Amino acid sequence: MTGDDRAASLRELIGPLRVKPGSQVRLPGDFDPAYKAAGLKKKDSAELLQAGIALLADYQARLAAQDSYGVLVVLQALDAAGKDGTIRHVMSGVNPQGVHVSSFKAPSAGELDHDYLWRCALRLPARGEIAIFNRSHYEEVLVVRVHQENLDRERLPPPALRKGIWERRYREINDWERYLTDNGFKVVKLFLNLSREQQRIRFLKRIDLPEKNWKFSAADARERERWDDYQQAYSQLLSATSTPWAPWYVIPADRKWFARICAAAVIAQTLIEIDPHYPRVSQQERRQLLEIRAQLEAQAPKGTAADPFAAKG
Amino acid sequence: MTGDDRAASLRELIGPLRVKPGSQVRLPGDFDPAYKAAGLKKKDSAELLQAGIALLADYQARLAAQDSYGVLVVLQALDAAGKDGTIRHVMSGVNPQGVHVSSFKAPSAGELDHDYLWRCALRLPARGEIAIFNRSHYEEVLVVRVHQENLDRERLPPPALRKGIWERRYREINDWERYLTDNGFKVVKLFLNLSREQQRIRFLKRIDLPEKNWKFSAADARERERWDDYQQAYSQLLSATSTPWAPWYVIPADRKWFARICAAAVIAQTLIEIDPHYPRVSQQERRQLLEIRAQLEAQAPKGTAADPFAAKG
Repeated sequence: MTGDDRAASLRELIGPLRVKPGSQVRLPGDFDPAYKAAGLKKKDSAELLQAGIALLADYQARLAAQDSYGVLVVLQALDAAGKDGTIRHVMSGVNPQGVHVSSFKAPSAGELDHDYLWRCALRLPARGEIAIFNRSHYEEVLVVRVHQENLDRERLPPPALRKGIWERRYREINDWERYLTDNGFKVVKLFLNLSREQQRIRFLKRIDLPEKNWKFSAADARERERWDDYQQAYSQLLSATSTPWAPWYVIPADRKWFARICAAAVIAQTLIEIDPHYPRVSQQERRQLLEIRAQLEAQAPKGTAADPFAAKG
Repeated sequence: MTGDDRAASLRELIGPLRVKPGSQVRLPGDFDPAYKAAGLKKKDSAELLQAGIALLADYQARLAAQDSYGVLVVLQALDAAGKDGTIRHVMSGVNPQGVHVSSFKAPSAGELDHDYLWRCALRLPARGEIAIFNRSHYEEVLVVRVHQENLDRERLPPPALRKGIWERRYREINDWERYLTDNGFKVVKLFLNLSREQQRIRFLKRIDLPEKNWKFSAADARERERWDDYQQAYSQLLSATSTPWAPWYVIPADRKWFARICAAAVIAQTLIEIDPHYPRVSQQERRQLLEIRAQLEAQAPKGTAADPFAAKG
């Protein structure tokens, strides 16, 4: 497959998942959690994912060498949608020196004392790096919106709590992501879209299998009771913050194998668009390298072969 | 003096220093570095500054107790305008637990690898705190603009370097400061405006007095050669980034004593506008306190006076 063919097939795969900027999304309904691309079969998925990971690893190495662009991957989902598994399966083949995963749980007292983007800003990628946010600043318009007592804990002064706070946060988040994009940090946003029924099945499994018990808490069941509120919060978020510079991708999450292929494809597509290259050495630098090479050769102890690669022969 | 009188006299003092949002500033000329408020005399300045500092200390204590608003003071100036001295003289009377000063010098390699606001975002105030930026994100549209080789060191990808980069940075900075303001962090911006002749005199002093030698380097003299470029960069910056939510104040810096009074006045004015209060205890909480008080009294060892404050009598 040529590079152009590969890019075209990636675009075809992820096109239906992209939330068109300016569109009004309604969940459930607008995006089917059980969707999969026609013709793709689970039995071929491991091989496909392996190819995708190899591609990611190659591009990440070039991204690091070029040291100019950075990538921020935002991963959002309800419980049991597969965030942790996606990170493990998609990013495990990539050099960990260039990948940083940050998980955003309930904010600490120290974090609550700052503006809400602060703890995320601390963990932004450097140039040449891929940063993955396992949950993110979007929690501020999700869990904080569904459970307004979280907003009380943020100690905002009264003017900051006025009506319109959620629209304001959408705008602030869009502004921030545009700033990052314009300064060389691509923002990739993935929402793992799970069905209510699949969540029920996965919760049951977490309760029935002792080795999965640690992944379940009674709080997860309480959050499930707010399912409709979360669907609404996600609908509004996807409508308001899918921008030309940082569109959302809604990843169908009922089939784990397909979700992973999609996540890898969206990240790969981003790297292909960046098209990072190993820095080229100028003719002058090349001449300098050859001069140094000559000096190193001249320093060889008597009786050593001039060609160091042959020396151990 | 009543609180209202005090606020009115502060407004009168700092009104002429404020850069009206939307106005076009041209330096030198629009703001006189040797300006001082009519009637103010140097011999009264120490007493006035002391009163201002006491006010700041009182308000800062309430700001910390309320734990809802934070304040970011941005201090910009050319060399020898008095940034360090202003911080020392104005903030020394304030509890250091609630004040953090960050000095932004030439960025490190690690800082250059991030977006340009990143190192400033790390040092933002928490709620209840005053953060002082000795130089700031504005260096990105000052020294980086005057010496474009600094821009090369930022490793920005080509699209981020296109024409319009400075206007884009003004917009990004305005967006960021609006976000901070809307979320409870007031941004106070002070430009210490020194005349070319006063800088010459202060440089001579730094060279002539051995104990001041450490404050001078040949690089300072080289920067002075770009005086006109800096005046132009400051003019454009003041025109583009004096916003309704975070206006610039141009502090006349040729008289150190007047500059310090003005800086204290602008910060005090901000705190007066915030008007922080010690948290009020509800009637229920008050009843609870009284119950605990009764229990503590009942625990007194036999023969001890019931009134603990009288016990040592």
